[in-house]
Amino acid sequence: MTTTSNDLITEEPRAPHVPRLTRRLTGFLPQEIKNIDTIIPLKSRNIWNKHQVKKFEDKEGFEGRFIGHVETTLARSLYNCDDLAAYESTSLSVRDNLIIDWNNTQQRITARDPKRVYYLSLEFLMGRALDNALINSQAGSDEPTSRPMVEKSLDELGFNLEDVLKKEPDAALGNGGLGRLAACFIDSMATQNIPAWGYGLRYEYGIFAQKIIDGYQVETPDYWLNFGNPWEIERNEIQVPVTFYGYVDRSDGESTTLSPSDWIGGERVLAVAYDFPVPGYKTSTVNNLRLWKAKPTTEFDFAKFNSGDYKNSVDAQQRAESITACLYPNDNFNQGKELRLKQQYFWCAASLHDIIRRFKKTSRPWSELPDQVAIQLNDTHPTLAVVELQRVLVDLEKLDWHKAWSIVTATFSYANHTVMQEALEKWPIGLFGHLLPRHLEIIYDINWFFLQEVEKKFPKDFDLLSRVSIIEECSPERQVRMAYLAIVGSHKVNGVAELHSELIKKTIFKDFVKVYGSQKFTNVTNGITPRRWLKQANPKLAELIGKALNDPKQNFLLDMPKLTELAKKADDPEFQKAWDLVKANNKLQLADLIKDTNNGVDIIDREHIKDTLFDIQVKRIHEYKRQQMNIFGVIYRYLAMKKMLKEGSTIEEVAKKYPRKASIFGGKSAPGYYMAKLIIKLINSVAEIVNDDAEIVDLLKVVFIPDYNVSKAEIIIPASDLSEHISTAGTEASGTSNMKFVMNGGLIIGTVDGANVEITREIGEDNIFLFGNLSEHVEELRYNHQYKKTELPPELAQVLKSIESGVFSPENPNEFKPLIDSIKSHGDYYLVSDDFESYVATQELVDEVYHTQKNDWIKKSILSVANIGFFSSDRCIEEYSETIWNVEPVKPET
Amino acid sequence: MTTTSNDLITEEPRAPHVPRLTRRLTGFLPQEIKNIDTIIPLKSRNIWNKHQVKKFEDKEGFEGRFIGHVETTLARSLYNCDDLAAYESTSLSVRDNLIIDWNNTQQRITARDPKRVYYLSLEFLMGRALDNALINSQAGSDEPTSRPMVEKSLDELGFNLEDVLKKEPDAALGNGGLGRLAACFIDSMATQNIPAWGYGLRYEYGIFAQKIIDGYQVETPDYWLNFGNPWEIERNEIQVPVTFYGYVDRSDGESTTLSPSDWIGGERVLAVAYDFPVPGYKTSTVNNLRLWKAKPTTEFDFAKFNSGDYKNSVDAQQRAESITACLYPNDNFNQGKELRLKQQYFWCAASLHDIIRRFKKTSRPWSELPDQVAIQLNDTHPTLAVVELQRVLVDLEKLDWHKAWSIVTATFSYANHTVMQEALEKWPIGLFGHLLPRHLEIIYDINWFFLQEVEKKFPKDFDLLSRVSIIEECSPERQVRMAYLAIVGSHKVNGVAELHSELIKKTIFKDFVKVYGSQKFTNVTNGITPRRWLKQANPKLAELIGKALNDPKQNFLLDMPKLTELAKKADDPEFQKAWDLVKANNKLQLADLIKDTNNGVDIIDREHIKDTLFDIQVKRIHEYKRQQMNIFGVIYRYLAMKKMLKEGSTIEEVAKKYPRKASIFGGKSAPGYYMAKLIIKLINSVAEIVNDDAEIVDLLKVVFIPDYNVSKAEIIIPASDLSEHISTAGTEASGTSNMKFVMNGGLIIGTVDGANVEITREIGEDNIFLFGNLSEHVEELRYNHQYKKTELPPELAQVLKSIESGVFSPENPNEFKPLIDSIKSHGDYYLVSDDFESYVATQELVDEVYHTQKNDWIKKSILSVANIGFFSSDRCIEEYSETIWNVEPVKPET
Ligand SMILES: Cc1ncc(COP(=O)(O)O)c(C=O)c1O
Ligand SMILES: Cc1ncc(COP(=O)(O)O)c(C=O)c1O
Repeated sequence: MTTTSNDLITEEPRAPHVPRLTRRLTGFLPQEIKNIDTIIPLKSRNIWNKHQVKKFEDKEGFEGRFIGHVETTLARSLYNCDDLAAYESTSLSVRDNLIIDWNNTQQRITARDPKRVYYLSLEFLMGRALDNALINSQAGSDEPTSRPMVEKSLDELGFNLEDVLKKEPDAALGNGGLGRLAACFIDSMATQNIPAWGYGLRYEYGIFAQKIIDGYQVETPDYWLNFGNPWEIERNEIQVPVTFYGYVDRSDGESTTLSPSDWIGGERVLAVAYDFPVPGYKTSTVNNLRLWKAKPTTEFDFAKFNSGDYKNSVDAQQRAESITACLYPNDNFNQGKELRLKQQYFWCAASLHDIIRRFKKTSRPWSELPDQVAIQLNDTHPTLAVVELQRVLVDLEKLDWHKAWSIVTATFSYANHTVMQEALEKWPIGLFGHLLPRHLEIIYDINWFFLQEVEKKFPKDFDLLSRVSIIEECSPERQVRMAYLAIVGSHKVNGVAELHSELIKKTIFKDFVKVYGSQKFTNVTNGITPRRWLKQANPKLAELIGKALNDPKQNFLLDMPKLTELAKKADDPEFQKAWDLVKANNKLQLADLIKDTNNGVDIIDREHIKDTLFDIQVKRIHEYKRQQMNIFGVIYRYLAMKKMLKEGSTIEEVAKKYPRKASIFGGKSAPGYYMAKLIIKLINSVAEIVNDDAEIVDLLKVVFIPDYNVSKAEIIIPASDLSEHISTAGTEASGTSNMKFVMNGGLIIGTVDGANVEITREIGEDNIFLFGNLSEHVEELRYNHQYKKTELPPELAQVLKSIESGVFSPENPNEFKPLIDSIKSHGDYYLVSDDFESYVATQELVDEVYHTQKNDWIKKSILSVANIGFFSSDRCIEEYSETIWNVEPVKPET
Repeated sequence: MTTTSNDLITEEPRAPHVPRLTRRLTGFLPQEIKNIDTIIPLKSRNIWNKHQVKKFEDKEGFEGRFIGHVETTLARSLYNCDDLAAYESTSLSVRDNLIIDWNNTQQRITARDPKRVYYLSLEFLMGRALDNALINSQAGSDEPTSRPMVEKSLDELGFNLEDVLKKEPDAALGNGGLGRLAACFIDSMATQNIPAWGYGLRYEYGIFAQKIIDGYQVETPDYWLNFGNPWEIERNEIQVPVTFYGYVDRSDGESTTLSPSDWIGGERVLAVAYDFPVPGYKTSTVNNLRLWKAKPTTEFDFAKFNSGDYKNSVDAQQRAESITACLYPNDNFNQGKELRLKQQYFWCAASLHDIIRRFKKTSRPWSELPDQVAIQLNDTHPTLAVVELQRVLVDLEKLDWHKAWSIVTATFSYANHTVMQEALEKWPIGLFGHLLPRHLEIIYDINWFFLQEVEKKFPKDFDLLSRVSIIEECSPERQVRMAYLAIVGSHKVNGVAELHSELIKKTIFKDFVKVYGSQKFTNVTNGITPRRWLKQANPKLAELIGKALNDPKQNFLLDMPKLTELAKKADDPEFQKAWDLVKANNKLQLADLIKDTNNGVDIIDREHIKDTLFDIQVKRIHEYKRQQMNIFGVIYRYLAMKKMLKEGSTIEEVAKKYPRKASIFGGKSAPGYYMAKLIIKLINSVAEIVNDDAEIVDLLKVVFIPDYNVSKAEIIIPASDLSEHISTAGTEASGTSNMKFVMNGGLIIGTVDGANVEITREIGEDNIFLFGNLSEHVEELRYNHQYKKTELPPELAQVLKSIESGVFSPENPNEFKPLIDSIKSHGDYYLVSDDFESYVATQELVDEVYHTQKNDWIKKSILSVANIGFFSSDRCIEEYSETIWNVEPVKPET
């Protein structure tokens, strides 16, 4: 981005040739509009006004748009319009409405010029868009949302909305919690009319699709754009050049790394913008999610000319696109590949270019940047944006280094998502300096000034200096610590749940608290959007709640603490019955999904579905999340049942002790994560044995649902009686699916970790099944495993023995040895042996309550929902807005 | 295509769930429509009918569509609609109209079910689409074409049509004559209401863009889709799987290569259809050009699962797209790269799949295929289609081998485009069999039966057998001769001009005439579409002609022989004046283009533009096309002028002998064609010396216009006084630019080669400047160069000496040695020395007529145009339809 190229759409007005129009990007200042208006003849303006596109407001209007899209955009007809075409045309029609609101929103924000938020996230796990858009957008005045109207229209046109919705592939541009959080946040920002844009990457391939073959996870590419994507607005006219490699030129001799320097890039690609409209609920605000795609430049490259190889230069151009080809499929793990760093810089550079361009429109002084712009770093992935802004201010805008730096730090804030070592981003300086030579210089300078400050406060504490240095000196190669850079470059750092925010201050960032004081560190507990996770996923429950609250238009979705009113109904038998019915229906739907993924063969006994406890753990497969403990528990239960039978108990007696239960798993493992993949295999192996065991009749079922993703979550979560959030204490930063399950009336079995702590506080200890060691004991327990001989609890020993015996892998009895070794011989890092007894005991308590005190169970469920309001992501956005970003809503005039 | 995959959109109706619609591709049989109608409730049908999209017919209607597209499709507004956005919206609006006609055309053809033509061409050099669509489509009843109406509307909206048109990048999916011929043919087929589809490839990169740097050609990638493409209809729902590699399975033991065999493919990609509407002139017929793009499959690949490498499987998927990434930039040259063969098979397999699917709809017996389908092979590139059809009939449809083969040969016809050895396609059998194992087997069988037939007719003529064998045995590796395969697999073979069609019978295909008799071989002389090459390129001339013929609506464009009427006006001084004025204006426009490509500096002296002979040679740079002879002629002239001056002549005297002339060149060289690139450099080097030589004032100018393409041709061709078509006799099969120049009132200097022969016959010997040796002498002349000492003519010797002296390359006097050596030492294969004297003499005659008998010149020009009617591609299509394809027009009802 050092030079202007023939590709760059510059902001300079072209040579004025009236009445031809000059191009601008979006958003016009009032003065600009005036200027343009004066050069456009009145006659032209009248024509434009006359034909201005209007939103459809009724069935008639929708049908016109729908058929128009079928017949022109898709070039199809009544005779070959199938569900896929109907999905596309419905989406395009709804999109037309959103675009109109999008334009109005952007125009309003430009005119008022408030402080804006930019949410930088390498992942946005959006799921499907159409149903959400139908719910979040209003058409006409009768309907609270467009959904019922469109449903009716489609029916008249010959389509069923539910079938049409299913044609949409998930936009799965994320790994798990972090990406889904970003998606919830942009929904809440739009709903709250916060002037905010998201910035991310438009991966050609999202997270892989998971297939289960012979019990093993197999990854297949997620080619989600196969049938095009009606939800993106391809902005071919917005192309930002981004540079890599090359060298820094300071040939004038005088200057230092602190002076404006010339970065002569070696490779150049274009970032092309794809915009995804983000509609708010019950507001006409439509915010923007801008995702960048890499494309080749068409500029003339003299270097390639000299080498003279046409074939090579075409190949190189094609390679440009590989930058945004593929999402890295690692969750909570840092891999350190050059292409990943390239993705990060590509995205940060393009986004900042866009942000700066927008800021510069109003010609404010640079010192006002932090008053106009808040940039939120979602984890450390976008930390290069800090350095890039410093580079732009110093090298291109020629600001004094220190003045620039104070602007930069006042602009950024950083949210940490993990304390686990293997997840912390570090980049070897060799790789870094090769790809981004100027940025490495700037990082050295940032570090230098930062360390000077530290040294002033804590003279001679060399140990402290080396501990807080952005450059880690002690690894085999020196590395850039991205989290430290993010802290130093931000004015606020937050964790994502109370426990986690306390932990980071005590562990990984302890020294920074010492240096900066603790005010720099804060907490914003995660939340989820109730529009998708309650109304969309569980429409019947939303309706029931609406009725109970005397709020048939479901305004409570905008003010979730209102749900506390539900508590009054917790003991009402009628209400309990209705509540239970909703759950039973949701369980049936999940049974359908399970049947679908099991070649059409039912696993769940539908007759007894109300009596079957749906025990669900769906999330990325990770040793720290301890799906292994869950499946060990299942094995334990199975062995105990078999033992009773062997010892002569009747099946009824067994059923009394171990009543009906379906143990449901789902989640992806990173492709290279051996242990996690082995856990998946173990679950499937256990399922095969247990589900086929006629002796235990249907008392226990084990299911692994393949390819867990957002749209499956929307079916799975509303169907849970119990969900498992059983990470080793101190490892899960927050978790958000815990909130989703509770919001849908499921109870939790969980450890005292992440947001479970606050969920407990909100819904009451009586309504959650907590167990296991606390995070303050983890260190000691691990120490004991390492240095003292510890005994396995007998329950676990028995389970491990049965696995070792090959019951679950007769063809390869050693198959699961690495899993067992990790506990028995390698220090049991995740403390399965320490928590297993209390886990098993708590599971038995769960059974008892569910099967013998069902009313009490339902009451717990109602009370949980009543008190889950705090975990609406609307609350998060309010907290961020007030305490970190300092921004205010810009409401549409009504 | 052996198996069905999850990707394949199959034709089977889905499980019927009324009233849901099942998908079909395009075109419905009347019975199907009835069936669908009965399952769609009347109410639904009424809604569909009510909202059916209608063509815009007036300004009002166009403006509504235009603004609709700006505001929704592009998500822009009055305030940021620039010329590019206006181009896109205009195109989208016009496209909407075309789609309606496209649908009607396809529906009409399906209902009538006539014989259809499929034109398979690896290249379609379409140029720009918008202006053509405006000319070819009619809106409303007042206007003969949509163009004036849209022009007016755009003006009112604030845009200038000419500027808007310039925003369109050329669709440059071809190298030169062959690809442009295909483009002219599909225009004529649409205009004549022939039920015809073109099939080709949608290259991401068309022919490279040529830059001239320091006089050298530099190739840069032509990323023509950079801003999207409103002219393509992306048919994501039409995805045909195509297989490569693998092996043939005949494990049942019984069977032979003649039995249905199983090809187990190793690699699989999808062909996705992109449709380009092809509107006819003054008809509502809109035909289709279907181009295929390669995309990865999303199916599960067990092999990749076994290797277990996620990263690799994503990479492999991405590589799929490289099949259609790039057009091979060789003109008349066979390169033999595997990727090229892959392109060919990919394209043939997908196209045949489509053709067969359409044929099978009506459940006719296979024996009727040749009555329903004609497949035209444009050169040998699509010859694999012959083998693929045989494979489909034998392996998938289980037809008897010989029955299948008689169907195949009755279906195909083949047009040869060259007799030059280096251009004939051959594939080493190793490479071929690796990529297409089953096809190689089939070729062996085809060859075996063919050779048996030959042996029956000419027993014991082993030499003949080896000469006609499809497998060439004598090269270092055995090779498949594609031209022979094409002949054997077709029922007709044609050349593209009389001379060429005679030549192929006497040279490369002599033995096949012996085997098959001469009736299998025929001639269809090439032609060009007068819509693009007269009306669009030269609107003022078309208008003048329309007036002269009393045909203001320009119906003559549909019946070009009508132009003979013009002859009456050839001597009319008024008309001559008007004629000359049109030419002068066109020359000014070319002067503008030249100025643009010369950094805004004028080269042409505008004041004397009427007196300056524009002598133009634009076409691919090739030794056989002899641009070297042209530039040698320029050097000769320059030296002669300098000599006169040196010998004391005044500049006026010089001007008398060598009057004003601009020698204009343009054309691309293949990137690896050393000699052609050297010719380009020589032209530019001469230009630099001559244009800067103040002594000769402005009497002689030399210009090389970079990046010659269709849209530049549309400016260049109408501006010529004289154009050069000076190939070595017997090398140029036809040439088509010769016709274009004449149709625009330019005279020709040319050899007795290609279509020049018939042009001469049509327009009369007096109206063309022929020179040089005839093709029947070429062999002997070459023999003499090889085996006898031949002297250079003094004129040429002088020229070569000056080049050798380094006048034109002072920094590297040896730079052009290879060019000189090829004449002096390497046998002068292209006979420059043999034709040079007559070339120079003829040029002097040209000068004389142009400068001293201008009225005579204009008369020649008028008479030429009057008699060029034969070369309308409409005539070609009539000939093909009647003599080769046996198809008839399907006219729209009016
Ligand atoms: C597909 C998907 N993956 C991962 C997560 C995060 O789950 P957890 O908070 O349990 O890690 C979610 C949350 O809903 C999700 O929908
Ligand atoms: C861009 C381009 N290249 C090549 C050709 C073929 O020219 P020729 O027939 O002189 O080889 C044409 C014909 O118009 C053309 O437009």
